[in-house]
Amino acid sequence: MQLDTPMPIIDMDVVEANLRRAQQICESAGVACWPHIKTHKSTELAGRQIALGAAGLTCQKLGEAEVMADAGLGPLLISTNVLGVAKHRRLAALHQRVNLTVSCDNATVARDLDTAIRSSEDASKPLPVLVECDTGRHRCGVTSPPAVADLAQLIHSLPGLSFAGLLIYPPNGSEAVAATREFVAEVRRLCAERDLEVGIISSGGTPNLALAGQSGETAYRSGTSIFNDRQMIALGAARPEDCALFVYASVVSHPEPGRIMLDAGSKTLTSDLAGFTDHGLLPDYPQARLVRFAEEHGFVDVSDCDEVPAIGEIVRILPNHVCPVVNLFDEITTVRGGRIVGKLTIDARGRNN
Amino acid sequence: MQLDTPMPIIDMDVVEANLRRAQQICESAGVACWPHIKTHKSTELAGRQIALGAAGLTCQKLGEAEVMADAGLGPLLISTNVLGVAKHRRLAALHQRVNLTVSCDNATVARDLDTAIRSSEDASKPLPVLVECDTGRHRCGVTSPPAVADLAQLIHSLPGLSFAGLLIYPPNGSEAVAATREFVAEVRRLCAERDLEVGIISSGGTPNLALAGQSGETAYRSGTSIFNDRQMIALGAARPEDCALFVYASVVSHPEPGRIMLDAGSKTLTSDLAGFTDHGLLPDYPQARLVRFAEEHGFVDVSDCDEVPAIGEIVRILPNHVCPVVNLFDEITTVRGGRIVGKLTIDARGRNN
Repeated sequence: MQLDTPMPIIDMDVVEANLRRAQQICESAGVACWPHIKTHKSTELAGRQIALGAAGLTCQKLGEAEVMADAGLGPLLISTNVLGVAKHRRLAALHQRVNLTVSCDNATVARDLDTAIRSSEDASKPLPVLVECDTGRHRCGVTSPPAVADLAQLIHSLPGLSFAGLLIYPPNGSEAVAATREFVAEVRRLCAERDLEVGIISSGGTPNLALAGQSGETAYRSGTSIFNDRQMIALGAARPEDCALFVYASVVSHPEPGRIMLDAGSKTLTSDLAGFTDHGLLPDYPQARLVRFAEEHGFVDVSDCDEVPAIGEIVRILPNHVCPVVNLFDEITTVRGGRIVGKLTIDARGRNN
Repeated sequence: MQLDTPMPIIDMDVVEANLRRAQQICESAGVACWPHIKTHKSTELAGRQIALGAAGLTCQKLGEAEVMADAGLGPLLISTNVLGVAKHRRLAALHQRVNLTVSCDNATVARDLDTAIRSSEDASKPLPVLVECDTGRHRCGVTSPPAVADLAQLIHSLPGLSFAGLLIYPPNGSEAVAATREFVAEVRRLCAERDLEVGIISSGGTPNLALAGQSGETAYRSGTSIFNDRQMIALGAARPEDCALFVYASVVSHPEPGRIMLDAGSKTLTSDLAGFTDHGLLPDYPQARLVRFAEEHGFVDVSDCDEVPAIGEIVRILPNHVCPVVNLFDEITTVRGGRIVGKLTIDARGRNN
């Protein structure tokens, strides 16, 4: 097999096992599986997730959701704040043609969503909205249960929207998951006082997938679990054999002792360190360190290696963070049983608005 | 103007001024202008560079060069080691249809290039090869003048290749440029002893563009100068008004005092810090710091800001390093005189092999 490097390759046998595992974890926990498509950005893989029993698909962006809907896939959840006049028509159109839920964490976005739906041609069907809660990750999200209940009340009062529940994303680990359960219970109590029904509680994240259900969620979003990566291994969320995507690169130079150069750099593997101090793992040369990137060059420190790969040799790299790597490619070669079987189209690649 | 954020926008008036400036610097220095297309990856802009007087186009990858050739553009230089059986037919085919020069820094690549050319259907036309020299940047390149002369001799001896000269990429600053001049002079002397003609000396890099010619080069490759970025300003190679590409993002959340969230993260601006400790400059809020990215979230510390942009406001971000940002988009919106005029197709996007 002569690979035209640099080239990412996805092992579809590993993907299939990973998809079945995520589905089974959710089923065992009595939680609906809502895979996050931001990792694979592929309607083919999204279709496979639905076929295996996923209740719906989570998207991070309106553009991703449009691609999924175009392929006839749904129901869909958009798990970020969608905002802006330029998106009003797109959002309303998507709402008309697919079972859509969105999330929001502030009144400005809620009112903007309401305007988007009410100014559309068919404004009779309210858009279900989850209130995003911050239970310690400090990204987006409302930070206190009373403020969550206030936003739920506002959403309930807006004619274009319906309050559908909560979106949570607990920090990694069982303590944070348990603390989130308290937060959620308090929100439930406050909402009950106001006669607001908390229908859906959507939680997410591959690192906490094994704890699905333990924050009181009814649905679980996991993205990275389909491929896994070096970060998921470090977090204890995957084993090396659960990693489905590797980038193959050629050694193209050995310019000085202790250093070799690969034909893969930041335009192939991204500069996302994901908390590591080097740019990826070479599993077949564990003492080698991918210390630096130029756009099309990988700098590998091999000074601690017993064996140094020769110029011309092709090496495997496990990405630190697989999600932005996939987003660089329009197509990715696939293997099954160690043989190349085709190409996967990354049809939602680059759909970041 | 209602922008559908996140969205990069290129000011074509600034691009035109930047292209003219680079061309004029080269002409004043008596050096052929060979713009590096790795920054813009667009045949439309490459064509404009040729129209303005560029002698040829530099590509970092075979795949980029194929896209340029498909658009009828050339001559072309590939400024990295091209290696591997999977590339032999592609390389030979490209050599047949366009005036092509490549570079190399080791004997394995030289022999592989020779095999590629000699195993092709029409093996009569040798492929011109530059020897890549390392004069202090410690990326690729042969590190001593005698070793450069040895590789030049080998290339000269291989029937599929012809030795065409040197590829240099001096470290930033006039001292390194002057030291490189010494290196080049020594190589010239050693090559003359062996009757090897050093025809082309190709130097490059936007930070040293103002010093074009001072290493003894005959040709200059600059890429980033077409758009510029925060890094080029920091290096003194560009003024703020020379920056042609900004990413526009919406404030979508203000989850806690001192922090706002943007709808642009690492899938829009990449994680390439380019030496900075934050992810981009907000020129209209200079006290704001883009401290962290998730894939679709930008975390902005606004605790030092006198004025904080409100939820719904659209802010401009100057990328730290523009090249990998462009590589995320299939098309980029263009403006002239402050008005949207169209879209630029990034047709060599993702062509990294």
